[in-house]
Amino acid sequence: MTRSSSRTYRLGEIVAKLGGELVGGHDPEIRRIATLENAGPGDLSFVSSAKYLRQLDGTRASAVILAKGQRGATELPRILCDDPYVYYARAAQLLNPEERPSPGVHPQAVVEAEAEVPASATVGPFCRVGRGARLGERVVVGPGCTIGEDAQIGEDGRLGPSVTIYPRCVIGKRVLIHAGAVIGADGFGLAPQAGRWIKIPQTGRVVIGDDVEIGANTTIDRGALDDTVIEDGVKLDNQIQIGHNVRVGAHTAMAACAGVAGSTRIGKHCAIGGAARIMGHIEIADHVTITATSFVTKSIRSAGTYTAVLPAEPGRTWAKTIAHLRNLDRLSKRLGELEKRSKPARKRKR
Amino acid sequence: MTRSSSRTYRLGEIVAKLGGELVGGHDPEIRRIATLENAGPGDLSFVSSAKYLRQLDGTRASAVILAKGQRGATELPRILCDDPYVYYARAAQLLNPEERPSPGVHPQAVVEAEAEVPASATVGPFCRVGRGARLGERVVVGPGCTIGEDAQIGEDGRLGPSVTIYPRCVIGKRVLIHAGAVIGADGFGLAPQAGRWIKIPQTGRVVIGDDVEIGANTTIDRGALDDTVIEDGVKLDNQIQIGHNVRVGAHTAMAACAGVAGSTRIGKHCAIGGAARIMGHIEIADHVTITATSFVTKSIRSAGTYTAVLPAEPGRTWAKTIAHLRNLDRLSKRLGELEKRSKPARKRKR
Amino acid sequence: MTRSSSRTYRLGEIVAKLGGELVGGHDPEIRRIATLENAGPGDLSFVSSAKYLRQLDGTRASAVILAKGQRGATELPRILCDDPYVYYARAAQLLNPEERPSPGVHPQAVVEAEAEVPASATVGPFCRVGRGARLGERVVVGPGCTIGEDAQIGEDGRLGPSVTIYPRCVIGKRVLIHAGAVIGADGFGLAPQAGRWIKIPQTGRVVIGDDVEIGANTTIDRGALDDTVIEDGVKLDNQIQIGHNVRVGAHTAMAACAGVAGSTRIGKHCAIGGAARIMGHIEIADHVTITATSFVTKSIRSAGTYTAVLPAEPGRTWAKTIAHLRNLDRLSKRLGELEKRSKPARKRKR
Repeated sequence: MTRSSSRTYRLGEIVAKLGGELVGGHDPEIRRIATLENAGPGDLSFVSSAKYLRQLDGTRASAVILAKGQRGATELPRILCDDPYVYYARAAQLLNPEERPSPGVHPQAVVEAEAEVPASATVGPFCRVGRGARLGERVVVGPGCTIGEDAQIGEDGRLGPSVTIYPRCVIGKRVLIHAGAVIGADGFGLAPQAGRWIKIPQTGRVVIGDDVEIGANTTIDRGALDDTVIEDGVKLDNQIQIGHNVRVGAHTAMAACAGVAGSTRIGKHCAIGGAARIMGHIEIADHVTITATSFVTKSIRSAGTYTAVLPAEPGRTWAKTIAHLRNLDRLSKRLGELEKRSKPARKRKR
Repeated sequence: MTRSSSRTYRLGEIVAKLGGELVGGHDPEIRRIATLENAGPGDLSFVSSAKYLRQLDGTRASAVILAKGQRGATELPRILCDDPYVYYARAAQLLNPEERPSPGVHPQAVVEAEAEVPASATVGPFCRVGRGARLGERVVVGPGCTIGEDAQIGEDGRLGPSVTIYPRCVIGKRVLIHAGAVIGADGFGLAPQAGRWIKIPQTGRVVIGDDVEIGANTTIDRGALDDTVIEDGVKLDNQIQIGHNVRVGAHTAMAACAGVAGSTRIGKHCAIGGAARIMGHIEIADHVTITATSFVTKSIRSAGTYTAVLPAEPGRTWAKTIAHLRNLDRLSKRLGELEKRSKPARKRKR
Repeated sequence: MTRSSSRTYRLGEIVAKLGGELVGGHDPEIRRIATLENAGPGDLSFVSSAKYLRQLDGTRASAVILAKGQRGATELPRILCDDPYVYYARAAQLLNPEERPSPGVHPQAVVEAEAEVPASATVGPFCRVGRGARLGERVVVGPGCTIGEDAQIGEDGRLGPSVTIYPRCVIGKRVLIHAGAVIGADGFGLAPQAGRWIKIPQTGRVVIGDDVEIGANTTIDRGALDDTVIEDGVKLDNQIQIGHNVRVGAHTAMAACAGVAGSTRIGKHCAIGGAARIMGHIEIADHVTITATSFVTKSIRSAGTYTAVLPAEPGRTWAKTIAHLRNLDRLSKRLGELEKRSKPARKRKR
C-alpha cells in the first residue's frame, strides 16, 4: 500500500534482474518510473502502445522501455522486451518496494482471547481481532480494522484502514484489501410474508483465494447457507458489490462499481467493465468480457464480448432517438401497412 | 449478525414451535439448514419452488420442508406447510439464534457526557458515543462506530463495525445496520452563484422506523430542512444511496446499489431492483416494482412493474442494434417518403 | 458538519448582514429556516421558484425570502433579493453556524512522530495521524480517521468519522470530507501476463484543491505515476468513484454514485448527474452537463447537455419497445425491400 522509492538502480541492474535487451551507449542511474510526458533526468519511461511512440521526441527521460520491434524509435538508452507494459509493472515493483511497518500489535489494538497473531504480523491501532481469529505470517492490518470471530487471513495479507472482516470468513494468502471494504456482511435474504419481510439468517461465509485484490469500499456478502467464493487471483476494484453465494472464477477482473447479484457464477479469466451489473442466479462462461455499464440478464455460455452500451449524445440528438424509440410500435405498424398495400399491387402488376 | 448453531432440535420440536405437518416415519435430530445439493445427515433442507423438486432425488438431507401439495414428492421425513421459503426462514432463525455479546461499554470506547447507555447495551471498542446520544435497551454497537451528539438508537438495535450515525438522527427499534453504513451525512445541497457553489446547511435529520435493515456501506443523507424518513420494516441492501428529504414507505425493499435522489417519496411495499435509480422530486405509488438497473424519471401513480432494462448482447449483435438506433431518424423519414409515394399511387389505382 | 441553531436574529439584522430589501410592517425574530409547508412562527421561509408561490397562502412562516419581482405575492414580512435560493443558503449559514469542537488531540488518538498538528486543530478519538503528516490550523478530524504518512490537510479542513487519507495525499483549505470517504487508495492498475494480473504500483498521489466537498463513502484513487487531481471548488456527492489520474476541473459538481474511469479529464463548471459514468482516457470540455445515469464513451469537445437516458416504462410497454429494438435489423431490411420494389414502379410511372 505505502511504497517508497528507497534506492536507485543502474539501468543495467534492472535488466539483470528483469531481463530484456539493453541498448544505448551508457548506463544511467534510475530513480523512478515516469510517463514520457512528465519524465525528467533519472526517470525510466515506457511506450506501452505504438500510438505513444511520437511522445518519445519530447521526453526528458533518461531511458525508455520499448517493444523489441521499436529498437530504432529513439537514441535514448533503452530496454527492449516482449511486453513493455508488463516490464513497466515489474520495474515499478522493483523501484517501489513496499514499506513494511514494524511487526507487532499496537498497544491500542484489542486482540481477543484465542486469536492467533504471529510475531511477524502487524496489527495497527484501534483494530479489534475477535476471539479465535487467525492471522498468517507477516499479515499487516491497518488502523481501525475489525476482524471477526474465527476469521482467517492468510500469510502476507494486507488490510488498509477501516476494513471489516465479518466472523468466520476466510481470506487466502497475499490478499490486498483497501480501506473501507466490508467482507462477509449479511446477504440480502428476505422471505415475504403478508406484506412483511422475514429475515433469513445468513449462515454461510465468504471464502477468498490467494493473490486477490479488493478495492476501497467494496462489499462482499456472506452466503445464505453455502459460501460466497472469490477464487485465486481475482482483482476487484472499488465500490463493487458481490451478493451472497456468488462465485467469481480465478483471475477474473472487475472494474469499479460493478455489481453481481446473488447466486451467480462468473467464470475464470473474465473482464467485467466498470458499473456493469450481472443478474442473480445465472452463469457466465470463462473468458467473457462485459463492457462497462452493461447489464447481463441471462447466462452467457460462450467466451466473447457482451454489451448493451448506450453512449451519451447531445441532448437534442438523443431526444429524437428516444422519441423514435417510443414510436417503434407505430413505425412497425406503418411499415406493415405499406407492405400489405404493396403486395397486392405487385400481384396485380404480375 | 454473528450467529452460531448452539443447539440441535428434533424435527418434531421444530414443528411444535413453528407449525406445519410432520410426515414420515421417524423424527431425526436437526443440526442445521442446508441446500438440497449440499445437505448431509443432520441437515434440514427445503424446496421453495416446484422446479427444484427433482433435486430431492439425490439429496442426503435428513428431512425436508415442502409445500402442502408436495406430500408425495419424497419419502424423507418432511414438514408440509403453506410457504416453504418462509418456513425455512423461521427454522433458520430457530437453529441459528443470534449470539449476543456481553453487555457493557468496552474500556476502549468513549462515551461522552450526558449520553445514555443502559446496562443491557453493548458498546464495542473504539466507539465514540456523542454527548446526549441515547441507546435503547440491549442495543449492540460494533467496534469503531461513531454515534453523533443527541442521536438515538431504539431498543434491540444492532450496528456492525465502523457505522456512522451523525448527530440528532433517530433510529427505531430492532434496526440492524451493517458495517460502513453512514446515516445522516450532509445532503448534497448547493446554490449556484456566479460559477461557485454555496453550501446549504443541512439541518434536517434522518429518522428511521422500527425493524429496518440497512446494508453495508449504504448512505442515507440528512434532510436540508425537514427530515429524511425511512419508515418501518424497510430493507435496504448494500451500497444504496438515499438523498436528502427522501421518504421510503413502510416495508419497501431495495436491492444493492439502488439510488434515490433528493425529495422523492417512495410508497409502501415497493420492490426496487439492484442498481435501479430514481430521480429526485417525484412520487412512487405503493406496491410498485422497479426492475434492476432501470431509471425512473417521473412519478409513478399506480402499482405495477416498471422497467427500461437493456439486456447485454454479443458485441456484434449490439453494434447492429445501436447503428439502427442512431439511424431511426433516417429510417423514419424513409418510411414517410415511401408512404407519400404510395398514397398517390393508390389514388391513381383507384 | 454538526450545526446548531445557537442564536436568533431579527429579520432586519439578517438583511443588514446579507443585503436585500426588507418589506412589511414589523421585524419578527427568526429562529430557523423552514419550508413554506412546515414553517411555523419564528421561521423564515423562501420561494425559490415561481411554481411554489401558491404555497405562500397556507404558510405559517413569520417571514419569507422572495425574488424582487414577487414583492406583492404576500403580505408577510419579506426580504426581496436577486436570488432567493442563494439568499436562503446564506441565511441558513447565518442561523446555523458550525459548532466547532474544542481544539486538541484526544487522548485516545495516535499521532506519530514528526506529524504536525497545530494547537488549533481537533483530532478525535481513535484517529491515527501518520509520521510526517501535516494538519493546517483549525482542522477538525472526526473519530476513527486514518491520516497516512506525509499526507497534508489544509487549514479549516473538516473530516467526518472513519475517513481514510492514504499517505502523501494533499488536501487543500476548507475541504469538507464526509464519513467513510477513502482518498488515495491504489488505482486499479494491472498488466495482464499469461492469464494472470501483475500489479502496477500506484506511486502518484491524490491532490485536492481548496473549498472542495467530498461525500460519504466516496473513493478517489491515487495516480499510477502522476497525480489524481481534484481542482478548487469541486463538489462530490456520496459514493462517487474517481479513478486514478483523473482530473476534475474547478467548480464541477457531481451527484451521487457518479463514476469516472482512469485518466479522464473533466472540465471546469461541469454538472455530472447522479450515477452518470464517464469512460477512461477521454476529455470533457468546460460547462458540460451530463444527465443522471448517462454513460459518456468519448470525448466531449463543446459545452452543452449530453444524455442517453432511458426512462422506465410500464413493463408491457417496455417489452414491446425492446422487441422492436431487437427487430430493427429486420425492420430496416423490410423497408429497404419496399423501397427497391417502389423505385422501379416510380420509374415505370414516369
